[in-house]
Amino acid sequence: MYKLVLMRHGESTWNLANRFTGWTDVDLTEKGVAEARAAGELLKQSGFDFDIAYTSVLKRAVRTLWNTLDTMDLMWLPVQHDWRLNERHYGALQGLNKAETAAQYGEDQVMIWRRSYDIPPLPLAQDDPRTDFNNPRYAQLDPKQIPLTECLKDTVERVLPVWNDSIAPAIKSGKRVLISAHGNSLRALIKMLDGVSDQDIVGLNVPNGQPLVYELDADLKPIRHYYLGDQDAINAAMAAVANQGRAN
Amino acid sequence: MYKLVLMRHGESTWNLANRFTGWTDVDLTEKGVAEARAAGELLKQSGFDFDIAYTSVLKRAVRTLWNTLDTMDLMWLPVQHDWRLNERHYGALQGLNKAETAAQYGEDQVMIWRRSYDIPPLPLAQDDPRTDFNNPRYAQLDPKQIPLTECLKDTVERVLPVWNDSIAPAIKSGKRVLISAHGNSLRALIKMLDGVSDQDIVGLNVPNGQPLVYELDADLKPIRHYYLGDQDAINAAMAAVANQGRAN
Repeated sequence: MYKLVLMRHGESTWNLANRFTGWTDVDLTEKGVAEARAAGELLKQSGFDFDIAYTSVLKRAVRTLWNTLDTMDLMWLPVQHDWRLNERHYGALQGLNKAETAAQYGEDQVMIWRRSYDIPPLPLAQDDPRTDFNNPRYAQLDPKQIPLTECLKDTVERVLPVWNDSIAPAIKSGKRVLISAHGNSLRALIKMLDGVSDQDIVGLNVPNGQPLVYELDADLKPIRHYYLGDQDAINAAMAAVANQGRAN
Repeated sequence: MYKLVLMRHGESTWNLANRFTGWTDVDLTEKGVAEARAAGELLKQSGFDFDIAYTSVLKRAVRTLWNTLDTMDLMWLPVQHDWRLNERHYGALQGLNKAETAAQYGEDQVMIWRRSYDIPPLPLAQDDPRTDFNNPRYAQLDPKQIPLTECLKDTVERVLPVWNDSIAPAIKSGKRVLISAHGNSLRALIKMLDGVSDQDIVGLNVPNGQPLVYELDADLKPIRHYYLGDQDAINAAMAAVANQGRAN
């Protein structure tokens, strides 16, 4: 049996400000750093150990990982950065306050953009200063690979190759894997692992900074999964994510 | 022309306590963290940018790198950890106060152990709790590769393959490389780059936390090298390293 640990980054400045973040490279809040360190303590106390970690190229996931590894005395661990583990690109909504966007477009439209599987938000214009065409961390990509918006389906389609080409072979080779990523790149992995439907995946909320453990069989099919730690706190964190984007 | 930046980790707790560190995994002091962040600021202000970083599996080098990358907004950068970039193993001296060791063995003997090219300090016993045979970060190695002591010549012999197999090809492929490592693994690289003699390399002191820039030609032969930043401060830092290990 294999174990895999998924973790969404700790609270970011834009989680706190209730803004659509997407590929915007915002940092963690102090609370977010504390969440990452608490996750590391919890993993250590629960006897977890790792051989390799995967993360995105966005600093809220990287800093979460660094703080978790530091707390576990694993600063030497090999880390694979992969842009395909980035958050879903939020298109023209990136940077907008969620409540304001809801007031402007209506709560229903915002909920469609946030929670439909295959309807992307309005795209960024090609010349929008928010695009990532000149961002050096994507310099190796074909510009066509750099999104101007994404629906969750798009995110799933770019995340799965990381699993198939890199993470799954690592697990099968016996490596204990930690993934520090984002709400929607983790949804993509959870959808694939648990066979969640297109309809149901959009209602699944991944709380910030809580280690999610998957026990996998020899074919990497899930036997069970569970969040480490206090279940009341985890339920509250999931409800908080679900309530973002309401115009209240 | 290529540019390569070498950096010794910032001040560690055992630099401060004047203890022989070697492979002991001590952390940075607050000053050491500040040195790493200042190095990042200096590199950024001087227009440096990187595509990949190399470091050891010891946290004083990793934390130095993390703070430098954080300051440069390069937390997404690919990082290669390699045990062969570790500090020279200091054998039975690891953990001993340098001044006390000098008082016990004589300043001349300590200077021989510290500064001769091919005379290693007394080795750790196979069953010494300070050995690294059960350290998970070396689990992939043949136990014969895990040293019980090293002279500088031994360190040079393990560092050079990292250069030949990984760093040099990366530079030749156009990647801008940052190396965050240790006094003696950097001596090994400097010896190779500049063709420093066995006699002279032992007198060369690499200051903590100061970016050392090498400009290299198409064959990776040095055109020139220089420390970034204030030269008086760098000279003082080099003198401080040279004076460690005196019984005063």
